[in-house]
Amino acid sequence: MAKSADIYYKVHPWKITEEGFNKDYALVSESIFSLGNEYMGTRGSFEEGYSGNSLTGNYFNGIYESIQLEKSSYKGIVDKTDFIVNSADWLYTRIEADGELLDLNTVKFKDFYRELDLKSGILTKSYIWVLANGKEIKLEFTRFLSMKEAETAVQRITITPLNFSGEIMLHSGIDFTQIHHMTGRNMWKVVSGSAHESTISMLGNTIGTDQSLLVSCKFLCDYIKKEDEQEEKQYIRRFTLLVEEGKTLEFTKIIRNISRKGKSDSDKKAFEKKCEENAAVLNALTYSKLKSETIAWWDRAWQESDIEIKGDELNQQGIRYCIFQMHQTYHGADKGTIIGAKGLTGEAYSGNTFWDTEAYCLPFYIFNNPQAAKHLLEFRYLTLSEAMDRAKDLDCEGAFYPIATITGRECCTLWQHASLQLQASTAVAYGYWHYENITGDNQFIFEKGLPILIEVSRMLASRGDWSGDGIRYGFYGVMGPDEFQMMVNHNCYTNYMGKKTLEYTLDVLKRCSEMAPEIYDAAIRDRGLTEKEIEKFRMIAENMYIPYQEETGIFEQHEGYFNLPHIDIDRISMEEFPLYHHWTYDRIYRNNMLKQPDVLMMMLLYNKDFTKEQLESNYDYYEPKCIHESSLSPSVHSILASQLKKEEEAYKFFGFATRMDLDNYNRNTGEGLHTTSIAAAWMNIVYGFGGMRSDGKELSFAPSLPKQWEGYSFRVHWKGDILFVAIDKDHMRISSKKGSGIKILIYEKEYTIGQEEVVVPVIR
Amino acid sequence: MAKSADIYYKVHPWKITEEGFNKDYALVSESIFSLGNEYMGTRGSFEEGYSGNSLTGNYFNGIYESIQLEKSSYKGIVDKTDFIVNSADWLYTRIEADGELLDLNTVKFKDFYRELDLKSGILTKSYIWVLANGKEIKLEFTRFLSMKEAETAVQRITITPLNFSGEIMLHSGIDFTQIHHMTGRNMWKVVSGSAHESTISMLGNTIGTDQSLLVSCKFLCDYIKKEDEQEEKQYIRRFTLLVEEGKTLEFTKIIRNISRKGKSDSDKKAFEKKCEENAAVLNALTYSKLKSETIAWWDRAWQESDIEIKGDELNQQGIRYCIFQMHQTYHGADKGTIIGAKGLTGEAYSGNTFWDTEAYCLPFYIFNNPQAAKHLLEFRYLTLSEAMDRAKDLDCEGAFYPIATITGRECCTLWQHASLQLQASTAVAYGYWHYENITGDNQFIFEKGLPILIEVSRMLASRGDWSGDGIRYGFYGVMGPDEFQMMVNHNCYTNYMGKKTLEYTLDVLKRCSEMAPEIYDAAIRDRGLTEKEIEKFRMIAENMYIPYQEETGIFEQHEGYFNLPHIDIDRISMEEFPLYHHWTYDRIYRNNMLKQPDVLMMMLLYNKDFTKEQLESNYDYYEPKCIHESSLSPSVHSILASQLKKEEEAYKFFGFATRMDLDNYNRNTGEGLHTTSIAAAWMNIVYGFGGMRSDGKELSFAPSLPKQWEGYSFRVHWKGDILFVAIDKDHMRISSKKGSGIKILIYEKEYTIGQEEVVVPVIR
Repeated sequence: MAKSADIYYKVHPWKITEEGFNKDYALVSESIFSLGNEYMGTRGSFEEGYSGNSLTGNYFNGIYESIQLEKSSYKGIVDKTDFIVNSADWLYTRIEADGELLDLNTVKFKDFYRELDLKSGILTKSYIWVLANGKEIKLEFTRFLSMKEAETAVQRITITPLNFSGEIMLHSGIDFTQIHHMTGRNMWKVVSGSAHESTISMLGNTIGTDQSLLVSCKFLCDYIKKEDEQEEKQYIRRFTLLVEEGKTLEFTKIIRNISRKGKSDSDKKAFEKKCEENAAVLNALTYSKLKSETIAWWDRAWQESDIEIKGDELNQQGIRYCIFQMHQTYHGADKGTIIGAKGLTGEAYSGNTFWDTEAYCLPFYIFNNPQAAKHLLEFRYLTLSEAMDRAKDLDCEGAFYPIATITGRECCTLWQHASLQLQASTAVAYGYWHYENITGDNQFIFEKGLPILIEVSRMLASRGDWSGDGIRYGFYGVMGPDEFQMMVNHNCYTNYMGKKTLEYTLDVLKRCSEMAPEIYDAAIRDRGLTEKEIEKFRMIAENMYIPYQEETGIFEQHEGYFNLPHIDIDRISMEEFPLYHHWTYDRIYRNNMLKQPDVLMMMLLYNKDFTKEQLESNYDYYEPKCIHESSLSPSVHSILASQLKKEEEAYKFFGFATRMDLDNYNRNTGEGLHTTSIAAAWMNIVYGFGGMRSDGKELSFAPSLPKQWEGYSFRVHWKGDILFVAIDKDHMRISSKKGSGIKILIYEKEYTIGQEEVVVPVIR
Repeated sequence: MAKSADIYYKVHPWKITEEGFNKDYALVSESIFSLGNEYMGTRGSFEEGYSGNSLTGNYFNGIYESIQLEKSSYKGIVDKTDFIVNSADWLYTRIEADGELLDLNTVKFKDFYRELDLKSGILTKSYIWVLANGKEIKLEFTRFLSMKEAETAVQRITITPLNFSGEIMLHSGIDFTQIHHMTGRNMWKVVSGSAHESTISMLGNTIGTDQSLLVSCKFLCDYIKKEDEQEEKQYIRRFTLLVEEGKTLEFTKIIRNISRKGKSDSDKKAFEKKCEENAAVLNALTYSKLKSETIAWWDRAWQESDIEIKGDELNQQGIRYCIFQMHQTYHGADKGTIIGAKGLTGEAYSGNTFWDTEAYCLPFYIFNNPQAAKHLLEFRYLTLSEAMDRAKDLDCEGAFYPIATITGRECCTLWQHASLQLQASTAVAYGYWHYENITGDNQFIFEKGLPILIEVSRMLASRGDWSGDGIRYGFYGVMGPDEFQMMVNHNCYTNYMGKKTLEYTLDVLKRCSEMAPEIYDAAIRDRGLTEKEIEKFRMIAENMYIPYQEETGIFEQHEGYFNLPHIDIDRISMEEFPLYHHWTYDRIYRNNMLKQPDVLMMMLLYNKDFTKEQLESNYDYYEPKCIHESSLSPSVHSILASQLKKEEEAYKFFGFATRMDLDNYNRNTGEGLHTTSIAAAWMNIVYGFGGMRSDGKELSFAPSLPKQWEGYSFRVHWKGDILFVAIDKDHMRISSKKGSGIKILIYEKEYTIGQEEVVVPVIR
């Protein structure tokens, strides 16, 4: 855990601000000032052009390209992988004055200020450009993505000549020449471009996947001359602007980005229709309306999901930034969209989504925006057939969910992960279970969950096996969440999650047959599920082997783990991290060191299944062996440390949770934000300090207050109502929005929560 | 073991003959009729050109090219791999008559006959070419590689017009346009070509590795006209020949191939000198002398290593073919040459040598040509520094020998094998030990073996580890000889071989310090070996964990193997083989099925360490779980079955050992011969039926006679003498060449063998 903060942005409860521009932080700022609205995202690059270090990026959820790799001579190894495409730069701008081109890497400037307002989602920057001849121009740039009209982005530039009058050239347009930085290749073929009096547009198709993107811009501005320049992949309009000393000229660009992901005839027709209607829609859009709608959207979002921390401005800013990014990345507007490991803020991890979605991100949505949680889960329903294809590839029955994916197809080219990790599949089942437990929405489970549960259970019943003596069922040749133990047998987490998945399947089958017999009959018929199979699921669930040492109460991470060679992780020198880069590949796997929690992850997900003594034994045994090389690891440990009243440890592991990216703890924020870690920061507060547990029949709390804080508050949705929770040094105060009389446990004692505040003393 | 014979060639004790040409066997025949003399090899292609199925191939031991792969993001994974290069076709010939081009794929012909004479190493073929106009030409082609002048090859063509007189065009030359079939690329840049009255020559360099090959030809023939045609990579001389009805015209081509492998100045100078002298050397060579020298060489080889089998012509032919190919592939003329998995007969396995060299091939040479065995071992001494580099790559100390190599550098790009298999390193140590045990040549061991033993021991002492409880030493994350169990801990074979290697190192250190203190002191000094390290080796050897079940006497293949899911291999359907192609990659590793012997391999190599009861228990336990997907597997089982008096099983596993390629059991002989399996066939007879064991202080025999045979005989070198061994239904007869009074054991009773035959009844 050799991480240290690199505090660069100003601390403020609602804003991220940068005063003065430091080139060394150019890439980090591009990530930090990313904007997104689930549908699309744009990095915080300088739209006016910047010849310094930059990874310009504009992404659309679901717009991807593929790489065909050399075919493996072995079966089941992925040879085609998808990655998110860097799309057209729709903010493309260049500004010239007196023959000088504005470029903050080369020109003279002063009073640089940049601000991301978390309350409104609006990004602004301003500075004074000092020309070589002494002329000074004050520039202000504003941008935001509409949270209501997902296809719409807005840019405004104001120009004020401070000590002269004259002409300024402003180029604005659409730039399809952007490259995918990792491969250095441009992925677009431009089909057409067109222009009208105040608009231009360009239609591009991705080269290999044949998806479409129509970018159109409307310009609002007074000019004395305009000139169009169209190249193969660029459409630029050059405005000559007449500016007057001390007077501010306003230039506004409203952008509509219409994308087509699917290739079916109906997809194409729908896209064509949208394109046809686009001119009228674009024409009707106004800056002020778009802005007020977006501010209203954020206002509501904060009302439903803000966390307030008193007495700790750093974490206050940090957690709000996290919540802001969660909403930007995903809020459930569309069923087919995903949460990439970097959200829509960079190319790293290829824009793929991992099992973190259900394990770490889902709770945020379940408790803040249940509709979004439902849509997030629905992605797995929509890609069930891909998971079934993948199971076939792996000689399994049923459905094997991918470790990394954009479209549902497995994109992880390392068989060690793609073929050995079952946790994506069991996390999907866990996600559906968790969602039902909190929302009570069994209708959704019966309709969309049951088919998945049947197919995942089939996979589990074919991928696992019985031990040689025929007594124990379990999974052989797997890699659990701890990726430092490869090809092991009876990984405790995998076996336990397998058991729970099968039990939940049996439970849903039973309830569905009683409560919704038509849905049940249809599911059984469609899936061809037999009584014999159901019996098999039961047999396996009952005989699933959970490696456990009775004397100590410790679960063995996998069969044989206890007697692996021991490494004292404190004696590994700093220079050897990250181990993946400094240790021979196979060496990582030859000892009892952990990359991230495995048994402890199981004990967090099914917290109520274990006693406090068990948790303590396992925490004390595994934590000292964990190097936390996964950015998700500290939060899990922090939550459990809170439960065990290890307050200092809890706060130590919380350490950088909320500010991982703001303070660039991993020194790689420049590549994009750690979106899933952001979700873990939310869990860290609500589950950790709030002591909330959601895996029982009732929601439970066991709050504590870090001694560094004065108080904190959060809110959570629960079965249609919202609970307001506030904790200070002495008390927990809890009330509900609708007063629906929710029964909860606080320190294991039952309370019924109405609109009136219930006050419970905080136990230290 | 779903293998069946495809008998195509005629059965004969000393010849491989093909009567009539069947195109379906064109590729197989190219492999079967391969010629080699260790220095170079040429497949049995039709030198006159053939437009049908063909993989023309001309190879030089040590002439290779490299492929640079994408760099792995993980450490220690090979990203550059070497492969043997297809070199110039030095037999290039085309024959034209009356405008028709000879091509057995298209023309009419009859009386086709091809013969490889194992006694002389001479390959001939003949047929009558029937022209469209009815003219008939009898053609005879002879070729051989000189076994004395390794750089020299000879081709003779005789032409007899049967029913006409007239002109025939014969093109003969050097063709550097040959491609590496797997990549489809030509690997040569031709530097120069030149011609004189009766010679032509061409000098080429490999494109990436900058090695050189000078091919020069001398033509001996009467012609009426000659014309030269030089293209970028071809030098062809076109002879117009005047032929007379019924008279035979003789065309002889003597070829010299001078290669340069190394790149040092001295390598280049030596090469230049050879090239300068080449004209004179070539000029002095005569067909008859080259032929008689080669016949004499083979005569001596057969005297020293023939195996005679009475009453079984198929196996008689088979074993002689094997012995012939062993000599062709390697006979120790040069220290830097290797035995590729396919010898010099094809591109498969890239011409790389594997651990089979020391484990399977070495015994043949130790017992037939100890000098060759020594040179074979010396390759590992010459490449010690590459093995030390590889150890560093793998975060180990000392030397880690490659799984697959041409130059000493690891060429296996699969980390699962290259990083996890320690058996190449322990096999090197075993090879040195075995060689010393049989030859008594401790001088060689002290000088060349000791440095290797020290460095391999260091690797073992750094690659292994102590169990968590600090009691057991062993190797974690390994793959033993059975490649169907990956990433296991305490593989019994690996631990045992590690223990024996360390013990041998300690033994050699002790003996060397006593018998050759100067060598010892130099080795200790050069290697920086400390007493502490020696003590560490001893500690590890003493505490090496050998998984063993006392009650049953069964060694556990690796920790946890006994309780793996069981697969009844007889229930795997035929269509699923080979499993690597039909089963998902990871599925292969999730059960107790074996690809090839692992514990049993250990029990063969150190046969005397185990009781017969132990052998029986382990054989009975492991054999039914083995699918013999390695072509080496059946011979090992056959040898042990013989020892256990399981005569039918022994003969069943012997089955195709001698004729694996002649009868194309694996249906892939067309790609090249299974050279290392050929070595196993020799072991199968001598160790299996002869019951010879060479891992004790004395050589021991426990002969048996397969009931299908009348008798068999073989000879083995032992400490400077040669033993002649003959077994028939009733007796074993044994005598020695020099009568040096060798003490041996026959059925565990000691005998002293002089020149006079000792006769011992065969125990059934």
